[in-house]
Amino acid sequence: MPKAKIYVTFKDGVLDPQGTTVKRALDKMGYKNIEEVMIGKYIEVQIKGTDKKQIEKEIDEICDKLLANPNIEKYTFKVE
Amino acid sequence: MPKAKIYVTFKDGVLDPQGTTVKRALDKMGYKNIEEVMIGKYIEVQIKGTDKKQIEKEIDEICDKLLANPNIEKYTFKVE
Repeated sequence: MPKAKIYVTFKDGVLDPQGTTVKRALDKMGYKNIEEVMIGKYIEVQIKGTDKKQIEKEIDEICDKLLANPNIEKYTFKVE
Repeated sequence: MPKAKIYVTFKDGVLDPQGTTVKRALDKMGYKNIEEVMIGKYIEVQIKGTDKKQIEKEIDEICDKLLANPNIEKYTFKVE
């Protein structure tokens, strides 16, 4: 069955407090080489269908309507 | 600067309530082709260094100690 791998991240300029917190924790743990941490979502969707174009259209819709918040997040995906 | 892309997902058999909720929401929205949804974390880390082996070692440590919960989560990463 086709599987879509979806990556949701904050748009440029949007604050990522979770990433900042993890960066600070790593500093305290002695990992001084870490310059930046960005935390997003990784989503795998199993989807029925054989028409790749149609599947991509559906995944794009789902991302836009539910999985990502288009005001502050962007997404990419690939269908395998 | 090297960038590590890290994917954290639940181990097989661990319940993913967020994924189940999203699956149910998609059902209600009329997306009947979706069979399964799995929600994990996608993390990007910018890290100083030139020795790829050393960077991979450090990222692996960080995943194990902080980014993933080894009891219920597994992770993969690639350094670019």
